[in-house]
Amino acid sequence: MDLQTAIQERFSYRGKYLNTPVPHKDLRLLLEAGLAAPSGCNKQTTSLIALEDSLLVKQVAALMEKPNFASAPAAICVLTQRIIAYRDRTYYVQDYAAAIENILLTATAMGYASCWVEGHITDADRIGRRMADMLGVPQDRELVAYLPIGVPAEKPVNVQKKPFDERAWFNGYGKTEEN
Amino acid sequence: MDLQTAIQERFSYRGKYLNTPVPHKDLRLLLEAGLAAPSGCNKQTTSLIALEDSLLVKQVAALMEKPNFASAPAAICVLTQRIIAYRDRTYYVQDYAAAIENILLTATAMGYASCWVEGHITDADRIGRRMADMLGVPQDRELVAYLPIGVPAEKPVNVQKKPFDERAWFNGYGKTEEN
Repeated sequence: MDLQTAIQERFSYRGKYLNTPVPHKDLRLLLEAGLAAPSGCNKQTTSLIALEDSLLVKQVAALMEKPNFASAPAAICVLTQRIIAYRDRTYYVQDYAAAIENILLTATAMGYASCWVEGHITDADRIGRRMADMLGVPQDRELVAYLPIGVPAEKPVNVQKKPFDERAWFNGYGKTEEN
Repeated sequence: MDLQTAIQERFSYRGKYLNTPVPHKDLRLLLEAGLAAPSGCNKQTTSLIALEDSLLVKQVAALMEKPNFASAPAAICVLTQRIIAYRDRTYYVQDYAAAIENILLTATAMGYASCWVEGHITDADRIGRRMADMLGVPQDRELVAYLPIGVPAEKPVNVQKKPFDERAWFNGYGKTEEN
C-alpha cells in the first residue's frame, strides 16, 4: 500500500475481530517494520514479541478484561529498556512510539486493524508486568504496549481531529497559509 | 512510495543538503502526515511549524551550530503541550514521536532526507526554547524537535542494527523462529 494511504487510513480499532488467522510471515513483516524505526543515539531500546499461539493470545489478552481486544487472533507486545543515550538522557519512549507507529501503518497496509493499548496496561494495576511475566520477560524490560492484530469485524469509527490550521503553521506560530 | 520501502529506506541524515527548494505543497503534505498520527485519548498534543522562508530557516537553524542541518532549505519544528489524557497521565512524548515518524517516512517517500534532532535542542542550553521564541511560540508549548527537510547532497550512512533475533521473538521472550 502507498505510504500516504496507510497514514491516512490508520485508525484505533476498539471493536471485535474476525477469527481469520494472521499468517506467520505477516507477523514477521510487522516486527521488521517496528525494528526499522529510528532510536535515540541508535540505542535500539525497543524489543517485540509477536503472539500467534491462539491459546497464549487468549491468556495474555484476558488480563486486559477487554473482550474486543482479546478477540484478535494475534498481537504484538512492545518491550522497552530505559537505556541511557548520553549523560542522563534516555529516549526510550520516543523509540517505542516510533516503532509502534511503523507497526500500525504496516498493519493498515495489510488490511489488519489494531489499537495502541498503553495506558490501560501501564496503570497502577500493572497489567503489562503480569503479561511480561507470562511471556518470560526479565525484570529489566518493561512491557509498555499491547497491539492486537487481526481483521476487523466492525466498521471503523473515526475520531474527530482538529482542523489543520489549528495545529500546523508556516514560518511562525499561528501563521496559516492565508496569512 | 510503497510503505514498506519507506520504512526500510528512512535513515537519519547528518550530511549537507542541496539548495533545491522544497515546494510548499510538499511541506503541506509532510504536516498533514504528522497530524494524522494517533495521540493518547485523542488529545492531539502535537503541533507543527514548517519553515520555508529561506532567511528564517537559516536564522532558526543557526542556533544549533550544526552547519549541515542549517544547509537544509526547509524544516519542520515539532511543538508539544503536556496535556493530561486522564488522571495524571500524559502521552505527549508518544504523540509527537508518532507524528515525527510519519513525517520522516513521508519525507523519505518524497526523496528528501531528514534527521530527528531532539536531544541537541532540548538539553540544558535550551536551544529549542530560543527557536520557539523566534517563531512566536507561547510559553505553554515546547519546541521538542527540529527536522531539517531537503534533498541530500551526500550518500546516506546507514547505522548498524542488531540482528532480528536479538530484538524480536514469537510467543515468548527470547523465542526465535527456530525454537
